[in-house]
Amino acid sequence: MKLHTLTIVGVGLLGGSIGLAAKRRGLAERVLGTGRTQAALDRALELGAIDAGTLDMAAAVRQAEVAVFCTPVDRIAEQVLATARGCARGTLLTDVGSTKEVIVKQLEGHLRRGVAFVGSHPLAGSEKRGPEFADADLFQGRVTVVTPTPRNDPKDVEKTTAFWQALGAQVRIMTPKAHDEAVAVTSHLPHLVAAALANALPRDLYGLTASGFRDTTRVAAGDPSLWTAIFTQNRVAVLHALRELQKYMLQFRLALEADNPQAIDALLTQAKKVRDALGN
Amino acid sequence: MKLHTLTIVGVGLLGGSIGLAAKRRGLAERVLGTGRTQAALDRALELGAIDAGTLDMAAAVRQAEVAVFCTPVDRIAEQVLATARGCARGTLLTDVGSTKEVIVKQLEGHLRRGVAFVGSHPLAGSEKRGPEFADADLFQGRVTVVTPTPRNDPKDVEKTTAFWQALGAQVRIMTPKAHDEAVAVTSHLPHLVAAALANALPRDLYGLTASGFRDTTRVAAGDPSLWTAIFTQNRVAVLHALRELQKYMLQFRLALEADNPQAIDALLTQAKKVRDALGN
Repeated sequence: MKLHTLTIVGVGLLGGSIGLAAKRRGLAERVLGTGRTQAALDRALELGAIDAGTLDMAAAVRQAEVAVFCTPVDRIAEQVLATARGCARGTLLTDVGSTKEVIVKQLEGHLRRGVAFVGSHPLAGSEKRGPEFADADLFQGRVTVVTPTPRNDPKDVEKTTAFWQALGAQVRIMTPKAHDEAVAVTSHLPHLVAAALANALPRDLYGLTASGFRDTTRVAAGDPSLWTAIFTQNRVAVLHALRELQKYMLQFRLALEADNPQAIDALLTQAKKVRDALGN
Repeated sequence: MKLHTLTIVGVGLLGGSIGLAAKRRGLAERVLGTGRTQAALDRALELGAIDAGTLDMAAAVRQAEVAVFCTPVDRIAEQVLATARGCARGTLLTDVGSTKEVIVKQLEGHLRRGVAFVGSHPLAGSEKRGPEFADADLFQGRVTVVTPTPRNDPKDVEKTTAFWQALGAQVRIMTPKAHDEAVAVTSHLPHLVAAALANALPRDLYGLTASGFRDTTRVAAGDPSLWTAIFTQNRVAVLHALRELQKYMLQFRLALEADNPQAIDALLTQAKKVRDALGN
């Protein structure tokens, strides 16, 4: 795959990582960056994540063969709609949003003929923000979910898949709904639990936390506004995942109340089996 | 501080780390290791965590000026009782157990005159096991809680404090009960939640986990039997901590059910503030 121009909308940790990976792998003749602030574009340029940057989002997307929207999930659809009208036929638009169903629905049937949007979500990232945390290997060996709909042209889905594979990712194809239900469990639920644990920590115990508490709550340092948008878009699936989790938490409560070490051990043994299967 | 003999009972990750730290810092003329298996003693010896090892626990403790019990919390009291009778007057016994009240109660008033037990809990460790994961800097700058009772001689408490400080730790003095209530929140509760999250993960979603899920559930890879003993000894405080956590999880559920982004943002903003205050 060799694109003439790859445009990255939002050059933060994810957008910057796409730029670094694309440039290292020679995926595009030119990588354009665009976003809200000149400062982020300047940093991305310094870091070598983009070849050029502009605050004119429409102009940057218009020049793209592929444009990737790496902006908050509640901004992606409006930015795609605002910029797609200027695109040439054959332009492929995708994104990195942590939710897919709302975004895909807001776009389906609203783009001009010949301009395609195929949703994507690389399962990689961090609680950190900004191009200075970008990593050319961020997608290497990691899953990126691509979420086409029946209305997408298979060629666009193939091109989206090839794009992520060129960045090192393993692509999984899922419907937007199946994606959202899955990440409600694997990503949004742990975030909710981590935040609740952090909120439950009295100030006088801050100094008595160790690596266990810190690992378990690490994601709670993520940006609140980004995550509010994610939770809002995926709230039905998150509520379902939360109800499921409560069943497992209830098992612990009952085992503790019954003072039943065998039951506690069985729950912990099962949990270790799952966690060991996930690796580091 | 210079001990003639430091005896480590249980040369796993924690015991091995005490040995490495003591030897690097010249804390003892001799570091003896004892435990259940020759293999662990041999590995600890190879790694330089002990100067000599023996399966004869009573003999190893008898020779100690200070002995540290680094064994499962449901074994510590019986091992102390079984070995303390052979100790000379002035011997100090301590431990690294994650619970303190049960252990201290089982020992208080049951040791011969002149042999002291002062409970300790270094807030350091890992879900990993074995001397091969030992680290001479494990305690450096980390808190160790020391939990004396009114019946402890202040000199023994001071010696216990000096011992951990010599290994690099910052010592906090707490009652056994206050310690157990604190770690119920900062350590045992996150473990329970991590295990419940792991148990709630359907097998077909294993491949859709990323660093968020893995961080949040990392501690669930800990040894089930060690943690069953911890939960069993501290079940009342853990149940209380769990009830507190449920209040914060309910806030998230209500905010999601009400589709109230302001409320979600407020919860996440508070959580980020707490988590940022804890550092890495």
